[in-house]
Amino acid sequence: MGTSGGTKQDAVSSPQAALGRRLGYVFRTPALLAQALTHRSVGVPNNERLEFLGDSVLNCTIAEALYQAFPRLPEGDLSRLRAHLVKQQTLYEIAQRLDLGSTVRLGEGELKSGGFRRPSILADALEAVLGAVFLESGFEAARDVISRLYQPLLTEIDPRTLGKDPKTLLQECLQGRKLALPKYTVIATTGEAHAQHFEVECSLEDLGVRSVGAGTSRRAAEQDAARQAYALIAAGG
Amino acid sequence: MGTSGGTKQDAVSSPQAALGRRLGYVFRTPALLAQALTHRSVGVPNNERLEFLGDSVLNCTIAEALYQAFPRLPEGDLSRLRAHLVKQQTLYEIAQRLDLGSTVRLGEGELKSGGFRRPSILADALEAVLGAVFLESGFEAARDVISRLYQPLLTEIDPRTLGKDPKTLLQECLQGRKLALPKYTVIATTGEAHAQHFEVECSLEDLGVRSVGAGTSRRAAEQDAARQAYALIAAGG
Repeated sequence: MGTSGGTKQDAVSSPQAALGRRLGYVFRTPALLAQALTHRSVGVPNNERLEFLGDSVLNCTIAEALYQAFPRLPEGDLSRLRAHLVKQQTLYEIAQRLDLGSTVRLGEGELKSGGFRRPSILADALEAVLGAVFLESGFEAARDVISRLYQPLLTEIDPRTLGKDPKTLLQECLQGRKLALPKYTVIATTGEAHAQHFEVECSLEDLGVRSVGAGTSRRAAEQDAARQAYALIAAGG
Repeated sequence: MGTSGGTKQDAVSSPQAALGRRLGYVFRTPALLAQALTHRSVGVPNNERLEFLGDSVLNCTIAEALYQAFPRLPEGDLSRLRAHLVKQQTLYEIAQRLDLGSTVRLGEGELKSGGFRRPSILADALEAVLGAVFLESGFEAARDVISRLYQPLLTEIDPRTLGKDPKTLLQECLQGRKLALPKYTVIATTGEAHAQHFEVECSLEDLGVRSVGAGTSRRAAEQDAARQAYALIAAGG
């Protein structure tokens, strides 16, 4: 590992060879890696089909890892954890660790508008790279790469909280302490119908805690208020 | 294949052994197969976690099969074909071929209401069985089983039509012949707001073809009318 070693060494550009080292996987077919890093703005062939493949092998690998790691967790919780681990933002953060932005190929327009920093483009390219590993070397090889990339995330998972929205977290926390449920009250609505702004107060009566959240929908403002209230009571122990 | 052969032979009830023969896979752990066939109405443990695993390995295997079978098909079409192949109705039909209904374990209530015939219960059980193969013998073993089950479906796929809704099919067919697009007209609406019934006429002016479809929504009635119109012109060549 660490060097591509084969006769096609010269065909691997330096950033791509560095990517192989960071992945812990050396592509035997540099053209396949190049395709995985080619955004559709460049034309055809591009990485869309490989992304389809990569998304599926990622979902399968993460499903298996969670199944094994949490033998007693119900299916609904496994789904919630997986959704968090394979969502665009998580993939984007991994892609940044891999410095994928320095290796993606973009069309003129995307290049000018800074597409190499766009979360969706980098997340898709990461999936395509995983799809390329799967295609070239099979499931076990793809699983090895994915396991290494996800190890920091998998070891710090807390299945009680990860991927839950703030209102759910707050409610479960209060129920665990046998306290009254939060009350949400809209205290202000401003703006026209198409651009409304809401302020919602969240009140925890048993604890004498109040927070105010804001958002472009009532639901978003409630979540914002819940997030703040949860932070207050979590900090207070 | 065909007999379980191990020392736990006696633990495999006859319908389960027959299922193994139909799958072309013999479970080394009869308890795992038994769990895969246990509906949540029985209690815990049941097949919900295995279904989660099986759904993911099925998606991955079908993605790979389609990727290989259709080297030029865009990602959107691959997704559409896969959605058709892994949807409940398709799984249900495979489960019927396997006579899975004779092997599922249901709680009292589901048993009385004929749950062993319910498409969702049988489709979920099939996914759980695939998850159990994956868990016990790994990805390649699961892929072998899935490939055998899906071979009749995969060989007769027509990527131009499979999984497309009737309105899309009809529109593409007319566009291919450079004919005018269909016109949809609501000709009757009956029933109260919560239980409306729609009738929609589909008219193909260039061909002098008319059909009338019905449904509980305008969209459903349009699809029904399109399906009939498509059948008429497909039959007429």
